[in-house]
Amino acid sequence: MLTYSFVDIGSKKLYEHLYECIKKDILDGNIPSKTRLPSKRAFAKNLGVSTVTVENAYEQLLAEGYVYSVPKIGFFAADIDTPLKSNAVPKMSAAAERAQKTYFADFVSNQTNPKKFPFSVWSKLMRGVILDKSAELMQNSPYNGIDELRIEICRYLADFRGISASPEQIFIGAGTEYLYGLLVQLLGYDKRYAVEDPGYMKVYQIYKSNNVDCTFAPMDENGIDIEYIEKHNADVLHISPSHHYPTGKIMPVSRRYELMGWASKSDNRYIIEDDYDSEFRLMGNPIPSLQSIDVSEKVIYMNTFTKSLASTIRISYMVLPPHLINNFYNKLGFYSCTVSTFEQYTLAAFISNGYFEKHINRMRNYYRKKRDFIMSCINKSSLEGISKISEESSGLHFLLHIDTNMTDEEVVASARKNGINAVCLSHYFHSIPCTCAHTIVINYSGIEDDRIEEAVSRLANSIKK
Amino acid sequence: MLTYSFVDIGSKKLYEHLYECIKKDILDGNIPSKTRLPSKRAFAKNLGVSTVTVENAYEQLLAEGYVYSVPKIGFFAADIDTPLKSNAVPKMSAAAERAQKTYFADFVSNQTNPKKFPFSVWSKLMRGVILDKSAELMQNSPYNGIDELRIEICRYLADFRGISASPEQIFIGAGTEYLYGLLVQLLGYDKRYAVEDPGYMKVYQIYKSNNVDCTFAPMDENGIDIEYIEKHNADVLHISPSHHYPTGKIMPVSRRYELMGWASKSDNRYIIEDDYDSEFRLMGNPIPSLQSIDVSEKVIYMNTFTKSLASTIRISYMVLPPHLINNFYNKLGFYSCTVSTFEQYTLAAFISNGYFEKHINRMRNYYRKKRDFIMSCINKSSLEGISKISEESSGLHFLLHIDTNMTDEEVVASARKNGINAVCLSHYFHSIPCTCAHTIVINYSGIEDDRIEEAVSRLANSIKK
Repeated sequence: MLTYSFVDIGSKKLYEHLYECIKKDILDGNIPSKTRLPSKRAFAKNLGVSTVTVENAYEQLLAEGYVYSVPKIGFFAADIDTPLKSNAVPKMSAAAERAQKTYFADFVSNQTNPKKFPFSVWSKLMRGVILDKSAELMQNSPYNGIDELRIEICRYLADFRGISASPEQIFIGAGTEYLYGLLVQLLGYDKRYAVEDPGYMKVYQIYKSNNVDCTFAPMDENGIDIEYIEKHNADVLHISPSHHYPTGKIMPVSRRYELMGWASKSDNRYIIEDDYDSEFRLMGNPIPSLQSIDVSEKVIYMNTFTKSLASTIRISYMVLPPHLINNFYNKLGFYSCTVSTFEQYTLAAFISNGYFEKHINRMRNYYRKKRDFIMSCINKSSLEGISKISEESSGLHFLLHIDTNMTDEEVVASARKNGINAVCLSHYFHSIPCTCAHTIVINYSGIEDDRIEEAVSRLANSIKK
Repeated sequence: MLTYSFVDIGSKKLYEHLYECIKKDILDGNIPSKTRLPSKRAFAKNLGVSTVTVENAYEQLLAEGYVYSVPKIGFFAADIDTPLKSNAVPKMSAAAERAQKTYFADFVSNQTNPKKFPFSVWSKLMRGVILDKSAELMQNSPYNGIDELRIEICRYLADFRGISASPEQIFIGAGTEYLYGLLVQLLGYDKRYAVEDPGYMKVYQIYKSNNVDCTFAPMDENGIDIEYIEKHNADVLHISPSHHYPTGKIMPVSRRYELMGWASKSDNRYIIEDDYDSEFRLMGNPIPSLQSIDVSEKVIYMNTFTKSLASTIRISYMVLPPHLINNFYNKLGFYSCTVSTFEQYTLAAFISNGYFEKHINRMRNYYRKKRDFIMSCINKSSLEGISKISEESSGLHFLLHIDTNMTDEEVVASARKNGINAVCLSHYFHSIPCTCAHTIVINYSGIEDDRIEEAVSRLANSIKK
């Protein structure tokens, strides 16, 4: 009969040890398949343990399929065909070895300043939500987000973006990148998507990664080139009319109406309006959204709290045209909402109590001062006279045109050597030649206040005429 | 000269009112395109406002493209071609009118009991995180999740699931549904996916919605049918070997090794192991994961905190085989992590302080008692003698086989009439005929404790022999 030692089994339970011994013997072939295992009682007696111990071990072996039972006869070793062990040694990946480069100042990142996040208010609201809403917090969110948050977003959009939408048009998700993918599932894999050139490589990458046909559509002075998209049969445009990145341009209303005219010519055509930082127009009123002049239900409006609140809070939303709501529900309503109810309720309270509006106003002032200070530092530096600033009114970046003989690559490399991460406008041109060399895109939201002077000075020192 | 009234403009600023008047006149054609607007000074005098007011209105009109400026000459109305207004009246969608059905008890939902969520601990940890980690909370999460959480998940997997993985193999995302979509992007749109039949319709829907070829693969007694997947050229299998839903079956180790053998035959083949509720085996030890016997790097393990903690906290993760890490990073590393840092840090603290393990143990006891009580209620009801319970050892559901002449549809309809939401096993068969009529799937995690007796009694009253 099988015999196992129960000496030195440490804190393991007796039945666990017995289970492991038998399992090993079955896998190693020491107990051939179809071998009948000893009866519980006899085995227990032989091993000097209780029958319950043997019974528990057999039950676990049975559950996992190492043995099978024949009623009234007993337990038998199962027939297990283990493939040969592979000799593959897990390789350490390069990803593991990637060290995060740290710079003295980073003019590329859109990181927000941690000191400006309203931690105490957020913490207070979250505590309140946990205390008051324990039942609601455990209720699964509707597929499109909780009512409370969708209602608040509608109010906000009506007050600040001229968008009149009902809460059922709103869809909440964990970041705009996730929403792009959902839109592909909604609008179709057979559609042709177009993104702006110059523009974010990432947006293009996301469409390509979702396995759809995507093209870079060149921009002229007024925005995306309509002749190009007509000629190349684009169906869905992804644009940022209120503040284009990286050029900072605002699409004039004439081009907006032309685009609406283009869209209304076919049922397949839609415009995704990515309004990622419209809250931060630093001069005058916000630019009205494209959605607000859309009478033919062609615009899918998208915005995010990652820019306006914190890049690490993953809450974004889109506004669907009314005729797409049912379509969306029928096609994609089975998905669970990707944002936790804890954060949805906290954000709803944050907006409804007026904190969001206050935060935006405070941040707008903060960014305006910051921008002014950076510009004044530039004007006091050796860049003065060889540089020109443009597109400084909107959003959290501006353009710094430099009169230099260095190539853009040299500018970036030289800045990095001085501990400054920088990027040139040419970096954002993908299918067409860059018409504006020597232009640095200054993303200033993440630069620490007490590093601005030094950062500008280092940047200036990186540039030779 | 243009004249506008400034009477009754309410709380609007003067320049805003002026901007709106001019904008309307340009859009309506009252100011034809290329018309020169009055000079600021003369216009201000005429309107009885300050020059700054006119200037601000003109700047806003300029920014939005309603006017253009010719240096040293002035401002001109732009040429705007507005399409005809569509008469489409936004229709109210059916989605808006969907009322959430409420039942006395719901045996279909996997909702967790709000009273069992450790609110006070979670709240305390979150407060601590907000106080202590303000800088980290504002740092963008790496694409695969914060280190702290990935390390804790590795420890947990090693201790409780026999999985030895390094933190860089872990990828954190907002729900398993989101992760399925990412895996399609990683493994390829040209692959053939197979899901279990019977099984969750939702998993199949997600693959179809991601526009890939997906097939239902029938299960035999031991799990997914290998002959079928060979014959139908499946590349990627999506299975739940440790606890299949809805049958409750555990895949025996023999079939597990056969599957590993199948997978190792081609570079294209992978197995997605969806280990959604393995924490809740109520008898004996947890069933080891398929990943733990994978020596050829073919298993992508996936699990979620939505079952073990709360369905409304959207944190899931997967364990990639080492050779896929670089691949994943290169293809999909540009995506931002979809889970907010606030929740990632809180969960990491929750696990590292031992609360997660305690919670799981407490919940396992709670569910065991709950299950026992429901089973005893069934045995005391009129179902006694005409029903049989099976697969009650694992996870948060069991099967109730009923001896009745009613069809499954009649059973469900009759239960609903009595305020009980129920679902039959046959509901989960999609491509093959159901071999087990009259079997109710009892999901008990969400039933309120004080409603169990009444719920079982109502269910029993719904069934006629």
